[in-house]
Amino acid sequence: MESMEGRENGLMDERRCRLVNGGPTNPMVTPLLTDLYQYTMAYAYWKAGKHNDRAVFDLFFRKCPFGGEYTVFAGLEECIMFIANFKLTEENISFIRDALPSNCEEGFLDYLRKLDCSDVEVYAVPEGSVVSPRVPLLRVEGPIAVVQLLETTLLNLVNYASLVATNAARHRFVAGKSKILLEFGLRRAQGPDGGISASKYCYIGGFDATSNVLAGRLFGIPLRGTHSHAFVSSFMSPDEIVYKSLQSFDGSTTCEDFVGLVQTWLNKFQWSSSFSGTHGETNQSELAAFTSYALAFPNNFLALVDTYDVLRSGIPNFCAVALALSDLGYKAVGIRLDSGDLAYLSCESRRFFRAIEKEFKVPGFGKMCITASNDLNEETLDHLNKQGHEIDAFGIGTYLVTCYVQAALGCVFKLVEINNQPRIKLSEDVSKVSIPCKKRCYRLYGKEGYPLVDLMTGENEPPPKVAERILCRHPFNESKRAYVVPQQVVELLKCYWSGSSGKAREELPPLKDIRDRCMKQLEQMRPDHMRRLNPTPYKVSVSGKLYDFIHFLWLNEAPVGELQ
Amino acid sequence: MESMEGRENGLMDERRCRLVNGGPTNPMVTPLLTDLYQYTMAYAYWKAGKHNDRAVFDLFFRKCPFGGEYTVFAGLEECIMFIANFKLTEENISFIRDALPSNCEEGFLDYLRKLDCSDVEVYAVPEGSVVSPRVPLLRVEGPIAVVQLLETTLLNLVNYASLVATNAARHRFVAGKSKILLEFGLRRAQGPDGGISASKYCYIGGFDATSNVLAGRLFGIPLRGTHSHAFVSSFMSPDEIVYKSLQSFDGSTTCEDFVGLVQTWLNKFQWSSSFSGTHGETNQSELAAFTSYALAFPNNFLALVDTYDVLRSGIPNFCAVALALSDLGYKAVGIRLDSGDLAYLSCESRRFFRAIEKEFKVPGFGKMCITASNDLNEETLDHLNKQGHEIDAFGIGTYLVTCYVQAALGCVFKLVEINNQPRIKLSEDVSKVSIPCKKRCYRLYGKEGYPLVDLMTGENEPPPKVAERILCRHPFNESKRAYVVPQQVVELLKCYWSGSSGKAREELPPLKDIRDRCMKQLEQMRPDHMRRLNPTPYKVSVSGKLYDFIHFLWLNEAPVGELQ
Repeated sequence: MESMEGRENGLMDERRCRLVNGGPTNPMVTPLLTDLYQYTMAYAYWKAGKHNDRAVFDLFFRKCPFGGEYTVFAGLEECIMFIANFKLTEENISFIRDALPSNCEEGFLDYLRKLDCSDVEVYAVPEGSVVSPRVPLLRVEGPIAVVQLLETTLLNLVNYASLVATNAARHRFVAGKSKILLEFGLRRAQGPDGGISASKYCYIGGFDATSNVLAGRLFGIPLRGTHSHAFVSSFMSPDEIVYKSLQSFDGSTTCEDFVGLVQTWLNKFQWSSSFSGTHGETNQSELAAFTSYALAFPNNFLALVDTYDVLRSGIPNFCAVALALSDLGYKAVGIRLDSGDLAYLSCESRRFFRAIEKEFKVPGFGKMCITASNDLNEETLDHLNKQGHEIDAFGIGTYLVTCYVQAALGCVFKLVEINNQPRIKLSEDVSKVSIPCKKRCYRLYGKEGYPLVDLMTGENEPPPKVAERILCRHPFNESKRAYVVPQQVVELLKCYWSGSSGKAREELPPLKDIRDRCMKQLEQMRPDHMRRLNPTPYKVSVSGKLYDFIHFLWLNEAPVGELQ
Repeated sequence: MESMEGRENGLMDERRCRLVNGGPTNPMVTPLLTDLYQYTMAYAYWKAGKHNDRAVFDLFFRKCPFGGEYTVFAGLEECIMFIANFKLTEENISFIRDALPSNCEEGFLDYLRKLDCSDVEVYAVPEGSVVSPRVPLLRVEGPIAVVQLLETTLLNLVNYASLVATNAARHRFVAGKSKILLEFGLRRAQGPDGGISASKYCYIGGFDATSNVLAGRLFGIPLRGTHSHAFVSSFMSPDEIVYKSLQSFDGSTTCEDFVGLVQTWLNKFQWSSSFSGTHGETNQSELAAFTSYALAFPNNFLALVDTYDVLRSGIPNFCAVALALSDLGYKAVGIRLDSGDLAYLSCESRRFFRAIEKEFKVPGFGKMCITASNDLNEETLDHLNKQGHEIDAFGIGTYLVTCYVQAALGCVFKLVEINNQPRIKLSEDVSKVSIPCKKRCYRLYGKEGYPLVDLMTGENEPPPKVAERILCRHPFNESKRAYVVPQQVVELLKCYWSGSSGKAREELPPLKDIRDRCMKQLEQMRPDHMRRLNPTPYKVSVSGKLYDFIHFLWLNEAPVGELQ
């Protein structure tokens, strides 16, 4: 298939410019894309004179999706573009005024007019990182009213992005590195942006290309696609093909009757003993469609071969056209299977291609690319692998983009500190208790280069050092603790937005770099964390000091029960 | 809660204007929001001189979602806005040129420049209708290349819209007519548009309001929302409240120390024998937060009462504030429960409110609105009903908007006729065989006013008549057939787009009317089709003539197998 590297880079540059001047990819991501209660709270804070209280919120999730032990963090670029451009228009403000449940004071509207994120600071894990439950993906600090206004939008931008990137990574993991993975989900995605986000974040998670033209345009993701069943059945027979001539690849000759050349090849199969399964008549609609498609794209002939009958019609028709192209110096790309027993059909197709290579001495014909689609998912990829198949590329749609197995990642946004006072959110369900304090987070690596544990500490604790013995404690379970001597320590949270403070901040890398980071981090994980069944839990811990403080605060806040 | 009727109507008008001049709600819905293969096919059609062949495509689904026997059709307005504004920009065209896998001829780009939907005709079931498998929701007719370019976008706009509207309808069905249903899903939705579409289509499916401000702005949907847990924990104690005065509802007096008034009420519970569970100290953060919120919104005091302990802290704190407001002539709205045993907590809260009404003679206090949220879905609503509860309003998010139980509806878009030649798409899976021909579709009603069966006929067959005996056949199962004598016949497909033909077309109704149609049609269904467990299948049939034709075409196209 075509290389799109050149254009990809050009678009990336263009994209970088947008980043500075423009907002998020979807123009609907504005300060109104939030829950009403963020505005009612902003008003209540403002009325109480509390709107500028300095608050720290953590955005995190509580459990890895899809029964796994890893999650890919994605959506950061869109979050930062949203924050950088956060500003209410007059029209927004007048809508808010009407939407508030009581008449509000004019002063509040003036406050909204001046509002932006110049006093907000965002620390985040780099996009494309492998991340774990409870560790903040974003730490957002600023005036409480402003930070709360960001909450819903940030959650919306991170939740699905991380979920679908993780789903893509899981598909890549099962398919293996050598396969081509194509995202075909736009038609079944949850709304237009469900489709556009899916294409972007599946690419980060390890897919190679998408069918979604707009995603190609916006993000420079390589595009793929040929034709559908309707294309095949829109033809009746080769008789209707009017323009039959095709120039050879090198331009030296012209075949005046390509349709006839295809027919000649088709006849050869019917009389050759090597192709005994194919002596019936192939479907004429299909033959006409393939021939027409080859006339339009002689350099990129890839045919969908299952409209009528793969082995009795699709494959012989495809091969006849491919061999006719080969006579003129073109190399066909391959076939797509979209129904039936994909393992069996791919093996039979491969056998046929190899037989042609041998019988008609067409070098490379046996290596023809076989693409499969049709409701594929992680599970079916796994089954195909177990059965054995000859598929080179997978087109995956519905199950990938809608995250059918688990359609939501439960990211939350919790207050952890206000005016330097640590805050905790209690719950009867221990897994829902939040970890208080403005924190720093580290990943500690072992001797073999694998990450061993993520560690959260208070903001002012000394950072863990390489080769020093560090106590890592489970945040809630007293008995779970371990000493670790890291060979490498990486601080996870970096500054991505510093408002007008002038503090240095990280650059937002191009999409391709985010994808590379993701691939690299996934490879670095210890294999037992990555397996599909019963993966070993990856450990997330707090320092001894933070552990003690959490439990002090917990006891302080929790009411003492009374059994009656 | 506040009425928003006035603004709603104003916005609806505004929205109608946009419809004529503007495009789809999401500006990203452009001719590039499609699969690449639609453009490669367009080129191949054009090369073959076939691009203007007149084609008819049906958009339909094969199975109702969520194990049910009904589906709500939604997304039509966005489809028509897309079609009405379908036009490629120069920038689009130059991107397409580069994205095609071979160099394409200039003439094709000229063709793309002139392309629009003036020669396209769209018949559709009215938006908000209850629809059934296999019956076309849209029938799109026009030049084949143009209609194929519309395919992916139309599927994207209908698939999720119909899925989530159906999910909303199912939630409404379980909750019952008298409950208030609030959509709270934005933060967990699949991308920004997954959120905006969810709000729009949940409203159609029977929800009353949304938390999504932008959906309120765009569609005039009533908005709801008060405060979060973070608001509660951002306060330390009532001491920090600086502005303590509150004017009475009628403006006649001012209470200078509202904080003190609240405290007075709180003390009363602690010494009253009717409130024996509440003699401990309530949480001071929470008390401060509730008091502040009431000072900001004295007319709309609704408090989230589960940050610490619902019965020992949240409810007494809420009641103290509500009673203080009552002293000043205000009427509190109610509480929200967001964790724990919602059935139990709602009953206990109700008991407490009633006790207050009785003890302190506050009329109506016992009827305080109780809202519940926290990972609710159809299943949990059903369980709550079975247990018994005192909840008046449900806030539903993740499971509703991501359609967690089934994250995709499998709408497809199939060629059924080209140049007046009927086409069939075969498949080894009978449920995937398409029904050929340009068709007309009817709903036949029985004596009791229930729909009995949907019937598809060829375009030129005489329509079924009231009181006449009509043979209805299952499209694929020879033995399934029945005579029906309808008491009412409704033609399902109406013209919504007639290009530049001048043919009369249906108006696109305001959202509220679509919602009303949906509510009415759902009520009209026979109850056994609607039940959650093992609903009776609703029948979809073809005329005897169409049946015969389908099977003639099928035999004609299918290859004869050969057992070896």
